[in-house]
Amino acid sequence: MATIGVDLGGTKTLAVLFDDRTVQAKAKRPTPVTGGPDDVIDTVVRAITKIDPDGRAGAIGIGVPGPVIPGTGVLPAAPNLPGWDHDVPVGELLSERLGGRPVVVDNDVNVGTLAEHRLGAGVGVDNLLGVFAGTGVGAGLILDGALRQGPHGLAGEIGHSFVAFADLASDGPGRGELEDYAGRRSMEHRARWRADHGEETVLFDLAEGGRLKSRLWAEAIEAGDELTTRLVDQAASALAAAIASAIVLIDLELVVLGGGMAERLGETFRKRIEDELVERSFAGVITPVRAARMGDTGGAVGAALLVEDCD
Amino acid sequence: MATIGVDLGGTKTLAVLFDDRTVQAKAKRPTPVTGGPDDVIDTVVRAITKIDPDGRAGAIGIGVPGPVIPGTGVLPAAPNLPGWDHDVPVGELLSERLGGRPVVVDNDVNVGTLAEHRLGAGVGVDNLLGVFAGTGVGAGLILDGALRQGPHGLAGEIGHSFVAFADLASDGPGRGELEDYAGRRSMEHRARWRADHGEETVLFDLAEGGRLKSRLWAEAIEAGDELTTRLVDQAASALAAAIASAIVLIDLELVVLGGGMAERLGETFRKRIEDELVERSFAGVITPVRAARMGDTGGAVGAALLVEDCD
Repeated sequence: MATIGVDLGGTKTLAVLFDDRTVQAKAKRPTPVTGGPDDVIDTVVRAITKIDPDGRAGAIGIGVPGPVIPGTGVLPAAPNLPGWDHDVPVGELLSERLGGRPVVVDNDVNVGTLAEHRLGAGVGVDNLLGVFAGTGVGAGLILDGALRQGPHGLAGEIGHSFVAFADLASDGPGRGELEDYAGRRSMEHRARWRADHGEETVLFDLAEGGRLKSRLWAEAIEAGDELTTRLVDQAASALAAAIASAIVLIDLELVVLGGGMAERLGETFRKRIEDELVERSFAGVITPVRAARMGDTGGAVGAALLVEDCD
Repeated sequence: MATIGVDLGGTKTLAVLFDDRTVQAKAKRPTPVTGGPDDVIDTVVRAITKIDPDGRAGAIGIGVPGPVIPGTGVLPAAPNLPGWDHDVPVGELLSERLGGRPVVVDNDVNVGTLAEHRLGAGVGVDNLLGVFAGTGVGAGLILDGALRQGPHGLAGEIGHSFVAFADLASDGPGRGELEDYAGRRSMEHRARWRADHGEETVLFDLAEGGRLKSRLWAEAIEAGDELTTRLVDQAASALAAAIASAIVLIDLELVVLGGGMAERLGETFRKRIEDELVERSFAGVITPVRAARMGDTGGAVGAALLVEDCD
C-alpha cells in the first residue's frame, strides 16, 4: 500500500509518496511564518495533493516539531510554528481535509529515528538511540524494535538531561543541561559571551552579522580557531556523557548521530564522541556511534513508516 | 501455584514461599564468605528445602548481586560472592538440584523494582524507575508494565550515569558518575579525605573505628554535623539530576526510592530529592518520589514474581 509521509519543520514542509520501501515522489513547500495553524495545515494538504492528486495513498504519517500528546494526534503550543499557541488536533484536521483517511502524528526526532532504524544506519539493531544535534539536541529511542513514545509523549528529550548537576544553582548561562553545552543556540551564546569579554575568534567575522550556522562552526575549526575548537570539544564531551548515561540506564546497542551540527562537523566529531564513549563505558560494553544515513528525506520517510507500524 | 523466591545477597540469603500474593513461609541463611559458587548454591538449596521440604512449589525465581546474561540464568564474576570469578550458570545448577524445576534468574535491583511495581509503592503505575541507594546506587526500570532487562542485561545501572561530565579528566576522586556522589562507599571516601584535610566531623567518632553504616550518616545529620549535611545534600542533588535525566529520556510517571541509605535518611531525604525534581522538570511534568514499601522481603518476593511473568 502506498502511504504519504510528511516532515513538518519550522522552515520547510516536505511530503513524500512512499511505496515498496522507496520514495516515489516528493514535494517541498516553505512552512508559513505568519498566520496560524490553518495556514500550516493548508500548506501540508497542498504538498500532499501535489504528489498524490487522486488520493491513492491509504494513510498519512506526519512528523511535527514538538512532543505530541500520545494517542491523540494533538500538537500543543509549538514555538517554531506561526500562531501555534494552543493544542491543535493535527491528526483530526488533516484527516478531515484528506477524505477521512487515517493520519498518524509523532514528533520529528522520533520519526527521524524510526527511519534510521528501518532503512538507515540502524537497520537490524533493535535497541538504539538516535541523537540529533542541531539548534537544540533531541533523541529518539528504539527499544526491542519499537519506537518509544512514553506516557506523556516526551521520550527522547535528551537535550534536557543533566550533565553538570552543580550548575543548577550557578549564575552562569544554563542549568547544566546537555543543550547548554551541545545545542547550537547555547553554543552561540557562549561564543558571544567570550568574544564580548575579549577572546579572539573568527566565528563572528565568518557570520558577517548573521547567525552562526552549523557550516560556520566547521569552517572556524578548519581555520584553527581556538575558542570554536574548545566549545565544540566541550559539546562532544557533554554529548558523550549524556549518551553514556542513556546506555547504562536503558542498555542500548547502537547510537545513530545526526542533525545539522553533527553533519557539518562530520567524521572527526562522530569519532570524538565514539572514543569518549569507550572511556565512559561500563562492564566492558562498547557502543558504536554511526552517522545518520537518511539525509533530508529521513523525517518524511520515517513519518510514512509510522503508518506501517499502525497496520 | 506456589512459587519460591530467593534474594541472594552478599551477606544473607533469604528464601520465601509465595502463594496467593502472600509470603507463606521464609528462611534466612548467612551467605558463605569463603569457598566458591558450589557453597553458595548449597546455601540457597538448603534455605529453599527448609520452607518447601516436599518440593510443592512449581518454579523458583532468584535475585542475584550482579547483572545476569539475558535468557541464560548465568551470573558472571560477582565481587560480593566468594570465589565467584567466572561465569556461573546459576539457573542450570539450581534446577539440577531442585528436581529439574524451572529457575528464573535476574539481578537484585530488578527484582526489588518488580516487587514495588506489583505489590508495593508502584502498584498501578506502568512506567517507573526504582532507585536503590546504599553502598552503591542501582535502579530497575518498568516500561509499559514490564521489567526491562536490555540486550546485555545491564538496564538500570544508573549509578554509572554521568552527572558531572567535566570530572572525567579531573585528578579528584571519581569520574563524575552518580555513585561518586551518592553511593555510601564513595561518600565515606570523601568524608575521610575532608577529615584528613582538617575538617571537623563527628562521623568517624560515631563509627568507633568501623565502617560508616547508613545509620551513622543519619545520626551525624541529627547531631548537626556540617560535613555530613553537605555530603548528603550533594548526594540528593546528584540523585535528582540523574533521575531527572532518566525521566526526560525515557518518559516516566513515578520514582520509587529505596536502599539502605535512603531508608535511614528517611522522609527529609525523599522530599529533598522530590523537590529538586520539580526544579529540574521539563514541559511541566512533575514526577512524584515514593518511598519503597516492600522492606526486607522485597527482593525475595520480587524474585517469586519473576516466575509469574514467565508463565
